[in-house]
Amino acid sequence: MATSPRIGILGAGGRMGRMLIQAVHQAGYPLAAAVERPGSSLIGTDAGELAGVGKLDVQVAASLEEVIHQCDVVIDFSTPQATETHLQICRDAKVAIVIGTTGLSDVQKQLVSDTAQHIPVVYSGNYSVGVNVSLKMLELAAKAFGETVDIEIIEAHHRHKVDAPSGTAYMMGETVANALGRNLKDVAVYGREGHTGPRERQTIGFETIRGGDIVGEHTVMFIGEGERVEVKHLATNRMNFASGAVRAAAWVIQQPVARYDMQDVLSLKN
Amino acid sequence: MATSPRIGILGAGGRMGRMLIQAVHQAGYPLAAAVERPGSSLIGTDAGELAGVGKLDVQVAASLEEVIHQCDVVIDFSTPQATETHLQICRDAKVAIVIGTTGLSDVQKQLVSDTAQHIPVVYSGNYSVGVNVSLKMLELAAKAFGETVDIEIIEAHHRHKVDAPSGTAYMMGETVANALGRNLKDVAVYGREGHTGPRERQTIGFETIRGGDIVGEHTVMFIGEGERVEVKHLATNRMNFASGAVRAAAWVIQQPVARYDMQDVLSLKN
Amino acid sequence: MATSPRIGILGAGGRMGRMLIQAVHQAGYPLAAAVERPGSSLIGTDAGELAGVGKLDVQVAASLEEVIHQCDVVIDFSTPQATETHLQICRDAKVAIVIGTTGLSDVQKQLVSDTAQHIPVVYSGNYSVGVNVSLKMLELAAKAFGETVDIEIIEAHHRHKVDAPSGTAYMMGETVANALGRNLKDVAVYGREGHTGPRERQTIGFETIRGGDIVGEHTVMFIGEGERVEVKHLATNRMNFASGAVRAAAWVIQQPVARYDMQDVLSLKN
Amino acid sequence: MATSPRIGILGAGGRMGRMLIQAVHQAGYPLAAAVERPGSSLIGTDAGELAGVGKLDVQVAASLEEVIHQCDVVIDFSTPQATETHLQICRDAKVAIVIGTTGLSDVQKQLVSDTAQHIPVVYSGNYSVGVNVSLKMLELAAKAFGETVDIEIIEAHHRHKVDAPSGTAYMMGETVANALGRNLKDVAVYGREGHTGPRERQTIGFETIRGGDIVGEHTVMFIGEGERVEVKHLATNRMNFASGAVRAAAWVIQQPVARYDMQDVLSLKN
Repeated sequence: MATSPRIGILGAGGRMGRMLIQAVHQAGYPLAAAVERPGSSLIGTDAGELAGVGKLDVQVAASLEEVIHQCDVVIDFSTPQATETHLQICRDAKVAIVIGTTGLSDVQKQLVSDTAQHIPVVYSGNYSVGVNVSLKMLELAAKAFGETVDIEIIEAHHRHKVDAPSGTAYMMGETVANALGRNLKDVAVYGREGHTGPRERQTIGFETIRGGDIVGEHTVMFIGEGERVEVKHLATNRMNFASGAVRAAAWVIQQPVARYDMQDVLSLKN
Repeated sequence: MATSPRIGILGAGGRMGRMLIQAVHQAGYPLAAAVERPGSSLIGTDAGELAGVGKLDVQVAASLEEVIHQCDVVIDFSTPQATETHLQICRDAKVAIVIGTTGLSDVQKQLVSDTAQHIPVVYSGNYSVGVNVSLKMLELAAKAFGETVDIEIIEAHHRHKVDAPSGTAYMMGETVANALGRNLKDVAVYGREGHTGPRERQTIGFETIRGGDIVGEHTVMFIGEGERVEVKHLATNRMNFASGAVRAAAWVIQQPVARYDMQDVLSLKN
Repeated sequence: MATSPRIGILGAGGRMGRMLIQAVHQAGYPLAAAVERPGSSLIGTDAGELAGVGKLDVQVAASLEEVIHQCDVVIDFSTPQATETHLQICRDAKVAIVIGTTGLSDVQKQLVSDTAQHIPVVYSGNYSVGVNVSLKMLELAAKAFGETVDIEIIEAHHRHKVDAPSGTAYMMGETVANALGRNLKDVAVYGREGHTGPRERQTIGFETIRGGDIVGEHTVMFIGEGERVEVKHLATNRMNFASGAVRAAAWVIQQPVARYDMQDVLSLKN
Repeated sequence: MATSPRIGILGAGGRMGRMLIQAVHQAGYPLAAAVERPGSSLIGTDAGELAGVGKLDVQVAASLEEVIHQCDVVIDFSTPQATETHLQICRDAKVAIVIGTTGLSDVQKQLVSDTAQHIPVVYSGNYSVGVNVSLKMLELAAKAFGETVDIEIIEAHHRHKVDAPSGTAYMMGETVANALGRNLKDVAVYGREGHTGPRERQTIGFETIRGGDIVGEHTVMFIGEGERVEVKHLATNRMNFASGAVRAAAWVIQQPVARYDMQDVLSLKN
């Protein structure tokens, strides 16, 4: 009885757009539409061939308006400015939207919330199912262990990454800090050298590894007396973000009008 | 306002008994009593010295009756037969009991349940906080990932262990199988050699490492496309069982009469 | 003084061929030539654009003879039949060759050896620098530990792999078995279930993990009393094979006529 | 033909001394002598009972002179001052010595070298076989990888450790730095936070984990494009130091007069 969701992909010619087309294809759904910015040389090409999954008989369109009525939901990993426009078009057409665009301003975030009073919207900082499951597990573990363990967060990324720790490592740190009633800013430790003195329980240690082309690894350790629990997430390519977004798209079209995040999609909220 | 729990240790002269005395001491609680079987040469010695934590001014007693009224709760990692007697004494004295004795018969397990209608009882197959937290995390992860990942369970123990996989590995396997509506017996795979064909999603793989004096390591992998989540538990000595039992003892004396397990103690039930 | 090696890539249109072009480019060498089989629609295209590294002004040629004199060395990851032809052409032109073709027959292997009496040849089953370094480390560790440890080999690959353990896992097993004077066939254990009895020191355990899209992971554990040493190799994409082959090419043109393998290239032989 | 080495243990009542007695026992050698400082209440007790391995009919002696002629070699993990005396006694008696005492002054180290012109002496900063094998593997890997990888060193110790990184982590860092012609002081990085910029190849990163009762873990990563090699050492108790020292003792009595370290004992020098 459940018919396949009709999913449209915005920014179809970009690296993430192509992955999203692959992910729709892998999930066994037909691709409903693909859009690239007007003027791109890719307009009119076959979206499937563009994404390397073979001909899908869906031509890349030059604007969302053209194709919005073929869609139940669109996935948007584009630019903040483009996302503003997309939100308006989706709202007018009563079509759900999954937003993966990063760098939204506070005003733009407010626009997301406003739009979500008219159509179902998913907006998440990280569409990886594994990262979201990990965050929930960390909350659970932190609450159960309480003050009986030392917590350390180790992350590894490629040599070109220019900041540290990663955003995901911070999210993990905040999750455990919140669960324990600590303020991450007060308890974070970013390196140890020389005479450090004994470890204080309240601290949360971050260790940052940089090297080669590591896509992204995060390990959180809960270290007690005589035992240790580790939660580890490894990303090996971006496909996990794309398939998480597709999962969100298939889910959100069956939900009432509201703003959701990946924890909602995965039923991870209490 | 909260006064310290008065905890008595049974089987005080054994390896686990000594660890329990250490764990009471480490938790900052006074030791209320220590009991060894009548006839032991250790009767009358100082329980703290016996456990290597220094004089505690508690002499090892020859029977539980002698000291039961000094206790709010007793911890019993002894033999099935001794546990039968201890249950009766605790019931008569209205003192709670934490049972870690292994190898109870069905009749003895029923006695545990019957006794739990009169006094608070904790009875668990594994008092490790880390193992119990891990089991809960595995349930959560299995439900969130659903059929989108392959699941593998790797465990490692010392060279003297004569069976495989470990009981804890099986518990982990059953937890994920139950969460996914699979029957572990039907889907477990215990080794791969030669032409195996591609992996079937429904299967749950067990890989068993044996070597040296490894105390106990368990890793469960949820392996998807482009990402992987691992939950890992390392036991490095038995102290984690002892401190889990002490935590259960301190918790159970504030609970109504009933039978509990470690998931209750750690508030891990939904 | 050292001028850049002039490297030609055979099978330039295949997946491995394109990676080899990338690897030459990454190593900072100019691409000397690129060859694809006659009749391919890729003949005449720019080899750099084909490989996704931008225009290199090297057109894909239809035969090795056409371009052999532009090369100091060629890299050949093609088919056994094509490799036969390439060996003859290189021999006649006195140009070195690096062979990564798999599935050579005994006769073809003999041809490799014969050719290596006239030109420098590198022929290796695995061009990964990491795998070769790991094998050398395993030999060293096995000899130093002797009979004082238990040895276990854990490998993980994607769900589509149809055999177990992997060829690399076997190579690792043979390396440690040879170092210890054991016959791998006699001592290999491929799974543990039920009543296994205590571990026998002489055995070498293989544990095979299958799941998702894991490219290839191998861990060898040397497990003693109170300590453990692990050597772990992770492959995350095929680039490591390509760059190893390019390293071999740059090395071999400075060597006397002979047959070499990657252990020679890396100076890992005693 | 090879008779068992007659090994004497100095500082027999201390934690390390007891472990050394256990290690002699485990290695299947008879204990030749055990010495504790004069005035200790342990003088005269049975050394085996003291170490928890059962009666060995060797009484703890109050001075080395008393028992030196029962020994082929003595193992000394005591204090710098006591070691000075022991060196003189061994030299006079022509008995070999294995020294694990830490904190020797430069003058005392010179005394070790001088004494080694008269008797065989083993003096090492770390008697763990696994650590020494790891150091040798690191040297090998660093030389083979050269400038093609990023190197990171991660170590973990218990919460009570007051300095960072560990001495063993530094030894590992110096080993790879020396192999690559780098000066560790110039290239070591001890933490990353905020805007770090891309990683520079020459750097060697140290990441320090502190928590619970972790005995000691060291991992060195060689991270390239598409692959990674890790060498990991886990210490789970001090037994590995004790058994390494006993191995050194059994080895040194068959060597000519000279000063040796564990790399000699394990034949790890080129």
